[in-house]
Amino acid sequence: MGWVIKRFIYSYLAASMLLAALPQATLFAAENAPARPDGLNIDPVGKGPFYYDTAEGTDIRVRVVARGLNHPWSITWLPDGSALVTEKDSGAIRRIVNDQLQEAPVLGTPQGAIVSRYKGLLDIATHPDFANEPYVYMSYNKSLGGDKEAIAVARGRWDGNNIQNTQDIFVGEEGTTNGVRLLFGADGMLYVGVYVTTDNPEPNFHTGIQKGKLLRLTPEGKVPTDNPFVGKEGFLPEIYSYGHRTPTGLTLNKTTGEIWETEMGPNGGDEVNRVERGGNYGWPLVSLGRAYSGGWQSERFQMEGTRDPIAFWMPGVSPSSLAFYDGDEFPRWKGDLFVSAMQAGQIPGTGSLQRIKFNEDGQEIRRESLLTDLRQRIRDVKMGPDGRLYLLTDEDDGLVLRIESAGD
Amino acid sequence: MGWVIKRFIYSYLAASMLLAALPQATLFAAENAPARPDGLNIDPVGKGPFYYDTAEGTDIRVRVVARGLNHPWSITWLPDGSALVTEKDSGAIRRIVNDQLQEAPVLGTPQGAIVSRYKGLLDIATHPDFANEPYVYMSYNKSLGGDKEAIAVARGRWDGNNIQNTQDIFVGEEGTTNGVRLLFGADGMLYVGVYVTTDNPEPNFHTGIQKGKLLRLTPEGKVPTDNPFVGKEGFLPEIYSYGHRTPTGLTLNKTTGEIWETEMGPNGGDEVNRVERGGNYGWPLVSLGRAYSGGWQSERFQMEGTRDPIAFWMPGVSPSSLAFYDGDEFPRWKGDLFVSAMQAGQIPGTGSLQRIKFNEDGQEIRRESLLTDLRQRIRDVKMGPDGRLYLLTDEDDGLVLRIESAGD
Repeated sequence: MGWVIKRFIYSYLAASMLLAALPQATLFAAENAPARPDGLNIDPVGKGPFYYDTAEGTDIRVRVVARGLNHPWSITWLPDGSALVTEKDSGAIRRIVNDQLQEAPVLGTPQGAIVSRYKGLLDIATHPDFANEPYVYMSYNKSLGGDKEAIAVARGRWDGNNIQNTQDIFVGEEGTTNGVRLLFGADGMLYVGVYVTTDNPEPNFHTGIQKGKLLRLTPEGKVPTDNPFVGKEGFLPEIYSYGHRTPTGLTLNKTTGEIWETEMGPNGGDEVNRVERGGNYGWPLVSLGRAYSGGWQSERFQMEGTRDPIAFWMPGVSPSSLAFYDGDEFPRWKGDLFVSAMQAGQIPGTGSLQRIKFNEDGQEIRRESLLTDLRQRIRDVKMGPDGRLYLLTDEDDGLVLRIESAGD
Repeated sequence: MGWVIKRFIYSYLAASMLLAALPQATLFAAENAPARPDGLNIDPVGKGPFYYDTAEGTDIRVRVVARGLNHPWSITWLPDGSALVTEKDSGAIRRIVNDQLQEAPVLGTPQGAIVSRYKGLLDIATHPDFANEPYVYMSYNKSLGGDKEAIAVARGRWDGNNIQNTQDIFVGEEGTTNGVRLLFGADGMLYVGVYVTTDNPEPNFHTGIQKGKLLRLTPEGKVPTDNPFVGKEGFLPEIYSYGHRTPTGLTLNKTTGEIWETEMGPNGGDEVNRVERGGNYGWPLVSLGRAYSGGWQSERFQMEGTRDPIAFWMPGVSPSSLAFYDGDEFPRWKGDLFVSAMQAGQIPGTGSLQRIKFNEDGQEIRRESLLTDLRQRIRDVKMGPDGRLYLLTDEDDGLVLRIESAGD
C-alpha cells in the first residue's frame, strides 16, 4: 500500500491566521493545522499515468504534470501556452512551461493576505483582450488591519516573465471572506463570486450587502452603468445575481454566452446554476440540502421567484469549479460539464471529478464520478488550450493533473 | 488488468421471456441479453480479501464467501446458521454452510416463472416464528398464461435440507411485475412491495390497484382486518401505504419497529422512506428526480399530504436493498443504515454500498460510498447472525461478499 500520509480535518470555524505583509513571493504561511483526530488514511497519488475505462466508451490516461504545489487553487494559460497556477497557502504564482514546473515563482503576487483553510491567494485570470491589455487578475483574502478582512481583486501587467505593478482594483465590504472566483464574461466584464458566512437562514436575501452575490465589475473594478440593479432601491449596484450561498466556481458557456456557477450547499444540496441577469438563486430561504446538524436546511425545496438549479447533488460532493468540454480530444464528451469536487457527504478523502451529460434542451441525462480512487480534493478543472482537461488538487502535496485520451 | 468480462445493457422495456414450468431447481433460464453496444469494460472481482480504510476510522476487510451464483437476489439465514440465497435467473435456492456454497440447490422453489432483466426468483424470508412455523417464503414473477403475469409469493416447509410442499399464498393483480421485496414486520405480518410500471405521471395515486403500494398480509397471504384502509372506499384493503414507485428494499428498524424502504426514482430522486401506516409517498405526482429524457419528473419536489423521504440521492444510485447495522463487529457503525446500490447516474459498473449516519433525531449527518472500485451491481445487503454485513452482487458471476472488521 506504500507509505501513508496523514490528512487533516480543519474546523470550519478555525481561527484565521493574520500575517503581516512580507516580501513578494513569500507572502503567505500555511495555517498550523491540527492533526486529524480520526478517519481515513490516504495513500499519496503515485507517479502515474493512470488509466481508466469510463462511460460513453471514453478511455482516458491521467498524467501528473506537476506535483509539490502548496494547495494550488486555480490555473490559467498565457498566449504563449505556458500556465500560471496559484498556490493558496504560500501565495505564490507558479508557472508551468512545456510541462515543467518552474522552480522560482512568478513575481508580482499581491502583498498582505490572510491564510487559513478557506483563505489565501485564490483565483487567477487574464484580461480577455490580453494582447492589448496584458493584465493578470488575482483574487485573495485581504487583511484590513486588526481582525478585519475583506475579499480583494488585484491585477498586474505581464511583462513576459513576471507580473509588474500589482494593484488592488476591488476590495469587498468588510467581512466578505473565503473563496473568491473570478470570471470574464462574454461581455468582457469581470464577475466576482462572494460567499455568505452563516448557515442560519436569515429573513431576506440581503440585497444591500455583497455577501451571497455575484458581482459584475468592469475590468478596472468599477460598477458598469448597465448592471441590472443600478438605481434600484435596496440593491447594491454591483450585484448581478443574488440568493447565492457559495459561488465556488464560475465558467463561461462559450456556445450560449451564459455564465454557469457551482455552489456548495451545507450538508448536501450542492448546485450547478445557470446564472441569469438579476436572478435570485434562493439562499438562504430555499435549499435542497440538510443543515450540518442533520435537519433540512429550509422548510421547502422550491420557492416562487427563485431559480431551481440545473443540477444538484444529494449527498453533497463539495463542488469547487466547473468547465464545459468543447475540445477535440474527447469527441464523446463534447458539451459535457465537468465539475471538480472536494469531498462527498462531509467525508474527507472522497474528492472526484463529476461529469454531467445534457440532452439537446440542456437537461441532465446522466452523471459520472471520475477519479474517486485518487481520493484527492480537486479544486479546479479547466480545459487547456490543447483540448485536454486539467485538474488541481488542493492538498499539501498539490498536483496538476491532465486527462488525455487513451484511444479506444 | 486481467481479462475482461463484457457487461450488458438490457432495455428497461426488454421483452420478457415466458417459460413453461420445468422440473424443480431448473425452473428458469436467463434471458438472451444483447451485447453491450458501448461503455465500460469491467474487470472481474478478484479472490480478495480486499482492505479499505473507511470514514469513522473503521478499517474493513471484504471477503468473497461464494462466487459463480446466477444473479443472486436475496440472502437470509436459518436458525442453524446456514444461509439461503436466491438466484434470480436460474430460479434456484442455494445454501451456504460454514462458508461453503453447496453445489446442489435446495429443492422446493416455486414452479413456473418469468425471467428477464427485472424478473425471476426474487426475495426469500423465513417465518418470524420459525421454530413452530418452519416456513420459507419466496417471491417471484409468475406467468398467468399467454403474456399475462403477476407477482407472487409462495411458501414451503423447511425439513432441515429442503423446502417441502411449496405453494402460492398470494398472487398479485394481473400486470403487477418486476422486483418484489418481502419483509416480516415487528407485528408478524408479511409486507410486500409492488412496483409501478410506467414513468408517466398519472393523474392520481390509484389506490384501487396494487401497483405502487406496500401491501400488508397475514403469514398465510390473507388481508388482516386491522389494515389501515379496510372498509375505506376507493382503497384496496391490502394496502398499507401508497404513492410508491419501486419498493426495491424493505427492512425493519429493530429499535423502533418501523419499516424502512428504498425506492428507485427514474433519473435521480432515489429515496429512503420511513413507511408509516397509511402514508402517501408521493409518486407519481412528486419526485426529486428527472425523467429519463432529462426534464424534471414532476412539477414540484414536495406536496402537501405526501411524505418527504428521509434521505434521497441526486444523481441516483439505484438502491436495491437496505439494512440497519446493530451488531458488535463495527462499533462505529452502530445505528447506521446501509443501502446496496446497483449503479450511479444511469451508468453501469458503478454500484456501491451506501452508508448513512444519522443524528439522535434520525436525521442524516453524512453518507459514505463504499466498494465503488469493485464496480458491481450490489443487489442485497443484510447483517448476518455473526454481526457482519453480507452483500450479493447481481451479476452473471454473482458473489456473496462479507464485510469484516480489519481492526484499527
